Amino acid sequence: MQNPVTVEVTRGRIVESRHRGMGIVVDGDGRTVFSFGDVESGVFPRSACKAMQALPLVESGAADAYGFGNRELALACASHSGEDGHAALAASMLARAGRDVSALECGAHWSSDQNTLIHQARTLEKPTALHNNCSGKHSGFVCTCCHAGYEVEGYVNYDHPLQAEIRGTMEALTGAALGYETCGIDGCSIPTYAAPLKGLAHGFARMLTGAGLEPLRAKASRRLMEACMAEPFYVAGTRRACTKLMQVAPGKIFAKTGAEGVFVAALPDQGLAMAVKCEDGTTRAAEAMIFALIARWFERDGEVHQSLMAMANKSMKNWNGIHVGDIRVTDALFA
Amino acid sequence: MQNPVTVEVTRGRIVESRHRGMGIVVDGDGRTVFSFGDVESGVFPRSACKAMQALPLVESGAADAYGFGNRELALACASHSGEDGHAALAASMLARAGRDVSALECGAHWSSDQNTLIHQARTLEKPTALHNNCSGKHSGFVCTCCHAGYEVEGYVNYDHPLQAEIRGTMEALTGAALGYETCGIDGCSIPTYAAPLKGLAHGFARMLTGAGLEPLRAKASRRLMEACMAEPFYVAGTRRACTKLMQVAPGKIFAKTGAEGVFVAALPDQGLAMAVKCEDGTTRAAEAMIFALIARWFERDGEVHQSLMAMANKSMKNWNGIHVGDIRVTDALFA
Repeated sequence: MQNPVTVEVTRGRIVESRHRGMGIVVDGDGRTVFSFGDVESGVFPRSACKAMQALPLVESGAADAYGFGNRELALACASHSGEDGHAALAASMLARAGRDVSALECGAHWSSDQNTLIHQARTLEKPTALHNNCSGKHSGFVCTCCHAGYEVEGYVNYDHPLQAEIRGTMEALTGAALGYETCGIDGCSIPTYAAPLKGLAHGFARMLTGAGLEPLRAKASRRLMEACMAEPFYVAGTRRACTKLMQVAPGKIFAKTGAEGVFVAALPDQGLAMAVKCEDGTTRAAEAMIFALIARWFERDGEVHQSLMAMANKSMKNWNGIHVGDIRVTDALFA
Repeated sequence: MQNPVTVEVTRGRIVESRHRGMGIVVDGDGRTVFSFGDVESGVFPRSACKAMQALPLVESGAADAYGFGNRELALACASHSGEDGHAALAASMLARAGRDVSALECGAHWSSDQNTLIHQARTLEKPTALHNNCSGKHSGFVCTCCHAGYEVEGYVNYDHPLQAEIRGTMEALTGAALGYETCGIDGCSIPTYAAPLKGLAHGFARMLTGAGLEPLRAKASRRLMEACMAEPFYVAGTRRACTKLMQVAPGKIFAKTGAEGVFVAALPDQGLAMAVKCEDGTTRAAEAMIFALIARWFERDGEVHQSLMAMANKSMKNWNGIHVGDIRVTDALFA
């Protein structure tokens, strides 16, 4: 199946680059409300599914045992920029379980946000695993293992009981068979499983509405999503798309990005969830797609719709601040 | 016309992202030796055509008047990383014409190379126009204006005599009509003109072989390309694709990247030039395409071919150094 061109990048009067993509909007019962492109083939959700991966932290009772509030739960679902506040909170989560940075198995990297990287370069000799964009998720994993009595070492491995639990949770939510055949290794070394975009969106619709979930899971799901919406800085960071998206309409938009052009969102008032993937893996296109796709479900004359469309159709300026072109979504998102 | 998938990005057993692209290889007479995708529609060459834009610097006699050697000419054709050596050389070029950084109209930005950015953050309060990736080109422009007696101020504008001269030069080389209708503004504020990939490749084949050019232009063209091949660090920088490409086989490969997924190359021994564009503007795909396309023209069992194919089909590691997937070119590049 041919994925449509969903985002165009213009310069002067000419379209300079084109992005193709696929996406779907579903309700709590998994009914497709809108879709474009191939939503049946397997896609790695990457970091877009972190809220699913954080469910054992809440369901096991670990989050309560360690006294975690919205900030800690948001960070457990985050791909953060490694700002000082993110690293400090990850360290404090580990400390609650009597652990420290040495327990993290995600590896270390400099921030992908330029301003944060400049700050890091001036204040750090080098980044630690606490600055890894996944350090909150991994701190949540370590805490879950400590509380559940699992061996912490090796918690990133496919065969570790925590990863098996996450795999089962994600299969139940997405309805997709997730095993060795569909498994890849993520940037932070944990397994990532390719699932159809349709299943991924349905999983988030289930988390949002609780449809078909046991009460414990429904409650944990809602708690994680509400934590992210309440503390959007801890889900991503300054200048980042997830943070800005959730700040546009506090409590009305849950959103999470993933590497290689994935983005998911859920809208509590509408009871809808959605997932998009840019065929070529480019973040600028995934962002434009999800901004426009969310905007559809808010009143056309309203502030939220207009703010989101202004984020989707973005003016590009050069180093001298001169307008040189635009990123704009195509009609494929409004068919 | 549908552009073929030319580059796939895998994770585990699955293709995670796909890039489409177009490309063409031509000889000095403009005969197509190989092509794929749409090579007839206009594409902004962006920085890939800097060697064309540097022709007035040599043809006017400015380069000789100011005593420029290979390094200065390479920098005039460069998209460099803003390393200390790049910024210092740009400053010294300006000094030869009695000017300084205040004459540059390209704007300033931090390095796009992470390691260089970290170094800049630790040694600079903020970058100047000398650190702009285009500072060598702009220093060449300023020197050309000074030598030719053009007003320096406003040298970036469409109507400035230098830009008119560059436009005429590029029209002659590419055979494309380049005017206001096909004009966009580049990142460094000068005009960029959309030309068919076919014309762009032909222009570089003309520069390489001198076919159909007056002796002055043929000599200037060859001098600029040879300068780039002799001093590849000054064309890009440490860890950068253009630099690495030209280091694989010194004197046998000229190559230059441009923003939004453009790459051109010329092979003196084969008398061929080529140009590629990734439809979605992604650098990783443009690099893989040009590496593989160049490799075709070197002996299959030889070291150059193998080095280039190893650069084209690249293993990807995560933050812990674990192999997670590959970037690989498709058969579309070998049809």
